[in-house]
Amino acid sequence: MTQLQNDLFLRACRREVIERTPIWIMRQAGRYLPEYRAVRKNSDFLTMCKTPELASEVTIQPIDLIGVDAAILFSDILVIPEAMGMELLMVESKGPQFPKPIRNADDAKALKQIDPTKDLKYVLDAIKMTKENLNNRVPLIGFSGSPWTLLTYMVEGGGSKTFSKVKNLIFNDPELAHNLLDKISDAVADYLNAKIEAGVNAVQIFDTWGGILAPHHFYEFSLNYVEKIISKLKVTDQPVIFFPKGISSGWNKIAKTGATVIGLDWTVNIGKVRERIGDKVALQGNMDPTILYGNVDKIEIEATKVMDSYGNGSGHIFNLGHGILPDVKPAHAKALVDFIKSKSSKYHIK
Amino acid sequence: MTQLQNDLFLRACRREVIERTPIWIMRQAGRYLPEYRAVRKNSDFLTMCKTPELASEVTIQPIDLIGVDAAILFSDILVIPEAMGMELLMVESKGPQFPKPIRNADDAKALKQIDPTKDLKYVLDAIKMTKENLNNRVPLIGFSGSPWTLLTYMVEGGGSKTFSKVKNLIFNDPELAHNLLDKISDAVADYLNAKIEAGVNAVQIFDTWGGILAPHHFYEFSLNYVEKIISKLKVTDQPVIFFPKGISSGWNKIAKTGATVIGLDWTVNIGKVRERIGDKVALQGNMDPTILYGNVDKIEIEATKVMDSYGNGSGHIFNLGHGILPDVKPAHAKALVDFIKSKSSKYHIK
Repeated sequence: MTQLQNDLFLRACRREVIERTPIWIMRQAGRYLPEYRAVRKNSDFLTMCKTPELASEVTIQPIDLIGVDAAILFSDILVIPEAMGMELLMVESKGPQFPKPIRNADDAKALKQIDPTKDLKYVLDAIKMTKENLNNRVPLIGFSGSPWTLLTYMVEGGGSKTFSKVKNLIFNDPELAHNLLDKISDAVADYLNAKIEAGVNAVQIFDTWGGILAPHHFYEFSLNYVEKIISKLKVTDQPVIFFPKGISSGWNKIAKTGATVIGLDWTVNIGKVRERIGDKVALQGNMDPTILYGNVDKIEIEATKVMDSYGNGSGHIFNLGHGILPDVKPAHAKALVDFIKSKSSKYHIK
Repeated sequence: MTQLQNDLFLRACRREVIERTPIWIMRQAGRYLPEYRAVRKNSDFLTMCKTPELASEVTIQPIDLIGVDAAILFSDILVIPEAMGMELLMVESKGPQFPKPIRNADDAKALKQIDPTKDLKYVLDAIKMTKENLNNRVPLIGFSGSPWTLLTYMVEGGGSKTFSKVKNLIFNDPELAHNLLDKISDAVADYLNAKIEAGVNAVQIFDTWGGILAPHHFYEFSLNYVEKIISKLKVTDQPVIFFPKGISSGWNKIAKTGATVIGLDWTVNIGKVRERIGDKVALQGNMDPTILYGNVDKIEIEATKVMDSYGNGSGHIFNLGHGILPDVKPAHAKALVDFIKSKSSKYHIK
């Protein structure tokens, strides 16, 4: 295995002493880039996910255009439920839809156990192709949704404001909910292991909807399963990032899941979270994505606030607190990356 | 002024020693009640707000039907921007819409200073009528949106997923944002004072969208203005409840706004918040509203968890962590109220 030219991201995940803070941006391969939109114009979203050449092309765009320190494979968290047998539609302006959501035990039984090497071969092919095309410039991250977050989509059938259907399920038929979460957890673990085997340098588990649960329900229906998955991962030195969006407490429990890195959204104070768990894990985040609507001065002021809040020493991977928004100027994303690259070394003086 | 027959809610707000925990439910005058839907069938939402007879009728329904310990005047937070001159439409299934949102300094200038006794007379009339009809059975709460929450609607023109427009405003033209927030704060303070004068026994300020801001931006754009408003309120013994939804930290700052009570959503641990600020303010909340989808056993288990978490002693007003959902069975709301009434006395034994 050849050495990565830039492995800052991986070393920061392991809290090694490094020369500056690394940065990547959630959804960095996305609609804010005209180069992405040019690819997207000719094929729908799922076709892009399923065509290794296209997935690889857009994955690498932000490395060339924005200069981030890690690539994240272009894909979608909902490829797992689709591989489990659910019809998935990407409806323009409405987001992803499952026309036949899970509503009862029979629906649940119909979900099949996946073999990622067959059912999600296109992802593994995209990883291999991207690794080749990246040519060891930066690490490649693979990702999955958490079982809870996948379940919400599978039960709601799409996005939701109140999550009535999945909440109905967990509060009225917790046994079925736990069976489903177990089944999804197996799929996620197998999927992430296949990605690791295919060559990703790190994995990230997105728990986008953990924050709609009260703390004790979050532990029961989300965190438990993330912990199980992490315990099953065949990682050698690949960091595992867990991003529980919308979570405001329970940091010590979260730090005990076995994740190498905890991702934070912008509504928490990264310095305060570091005080509580920063010696156990690295932290990733957490500038408000809408700061990129501001001018470069504003971006630099706010990026400095995040770095000051984290403070000195390793273990910080700069990122936004959520995905970059489609109406952000690419020049602003680039200005942020340049700023972190040029101004973060002072936090790393021994 | 005649004595209230049931003033438990007011005494809990003041953290006086009481015999049991009081309960009311956000949005208790709402669509989950068939009796509400019967009124709503014959008039649109804004007409109901603007017709004292109708507003009063639905305000009192949950006192009779569910047995809550306080009434909250049926209204909407967006009556203030409407009174300031913005056209407001209630679009079925889309929610409230401002067809001409605030986008620049000229739009802002066009907003007029309100005189609540003229521009929102219908609210004051509804308060007087409701007080009469309540006949001193329970206290009546009046409410307002926080300046920040009102601003988000006024700038976005309606609901939003990313709040791009209002974020653009605060990060690109903070001066205009602060001017607007000042103007709205004056309107909110005048409005709440007029409500107090008209006879409400308590006021609640809803900051529904404070949680989309990073902590330092929440202080700058929301909390500061809530504090200003509270300092202007001509309260004698009326408690002021501040409900910052989606907030996960900064409790000590929040407790210093001058509010008598802090409302909590269901994603925080009420016991932990009490540990931090429970000696300064009372706490209201915070069961997940979707627990009411569960059966009565489940509801009782989860209500007990909230009461156990708060612990012994006064200063707790039981409520949901957000408004009751339209598809909840009224019998489940009633079961919750009955349970709190019959089982909470043990938390109040001296």
